[in-house]
Amino acid sequence: MANNKISWPPSTQLAPVPAVLLGCGNAKGYSANLITVAWCGIINSDPAMLSVSIRKERYSHAIISETGEFSCNIPIPSLAHAVDYCGVVSGRKVDKFKACDLTALDGEKISAPTVAECPLTLECKVVEVKELGSHDLFLAEIVNVRVSPEFIDEKGHFDLAREGLLAYCHGGYYNLGEKLGSFGFSVKK
Amino acid sequence: MANNKISWPPSTQLAPVPAVLLGCGNAKGYSANLITVAWCGIINSDPAMLSVSIRKERYSHAIISETGEFSCNIPIPSLAHAVDYCGVVSGRKVDKFKACDLTALDGEKISAPTVAECPLTLECKVVEVKELGSHDLFLAEIVNVRVSPEFIDEKGHFDLAREGLLAYCHGGYYNLGEKLGSFGFSVKK
Repeated sequence: MANNKISWPPSTQLAPVPAVLLGCGNAKGYSANLITVAWCGIINSDPAMLSVSIRKERYSHAIISETGEFSCNIPIPSLAHAVDYCGVVSGRKVDKFKACDLTALDGEKISAPTVAECPLTLECKVVEVKELGSHDLFLAEIVNVRVSPEFIDEKGHFDLAREGLLAYCHGGYYNLGEKLGSFGFSVKK
Repeated sequence: MANNKISWPPSTQLAPVPAVLLGCGNAKGYSANLITVAWCGIINSDPAMLSVSIRKERYSHAIISETGEFSCNIPIPSLAHAVDYCGVVSGRKVDKFKACDLTALDGEKISAPTVAECPLTLECKVVEVKELGSHDLFLAEIVNVRVSPEFIDEKGHFDLAREGLLAYCHGGYYNLGEKLGSFGFSVKK
């Protein structure tokens, strides 16, 4: 295969990435707030940890820095409008739960609110913040997982992809499509 | 909305996540190798940075630790078999480029190999490694981006999702489905 590739300047083109609703606030004088982040990933399995990167100037940056807690709520495709809205509008001016008609539920192990309409929530406590430049990287431990029973099938399996799942790719929100295989399928006899 | 959610123990259930082929080696005595990682995310925009988490016992962990470089190759759905294989099999025993019939191309700004069959490659240099427990977190700067000209349309737009895009969710590989909207659509007049 010929090497006909073109070089472009460094940029953040990894895709697809998740687009999740972080719930924060309900502590230290802050009201419940939401922010959408696409720069979120699992970073460790034992203990279970994830990271999120947030620009310093965002309202939720201050809230999460001061409270040390957030919920990571995984949306379904019907929430695409809310996911976009919560990434564009500032919680300094708008009650995003109200504006998006979303329901704030108390977290079980954290003070930060969780989103009832999301079938999966990871409750997180910040363990370290690293300044990287435009963004700060919050390293957090996942201290609890909340799931909606409607997504658990007769066999007890939690099927998050049942109603699709929201992914973000180069400025667009996408639904998940067909399943191509399960982990390990390439070496199954 | 009633709070009927069920609590589960902490686990790494974020989804969807990318499933990317990291190319490493071609330096310090190591041959070209590949490893699939799902725990990969953008962490900063200026400078452009991403992170990957790799278990200490993986062969690629040693290679990337010693060489300080890797390529992050974003696959298309037709590569699902190779993506799975490179996450399951060890490069200590197998030449994965050969086994998967993939073509190693030289990186432009790094010694690590890149994957010709992937339309998008992020060339990365490690700036810090953090031990988190089961995994080490490699924080890396994206020093160059390589794109396949076949994915650039008449208007000069790079359309990575044109042939679909591979996402990973709870043990399954998925294609991307329909586009649900573009960033900012919720506030457009």
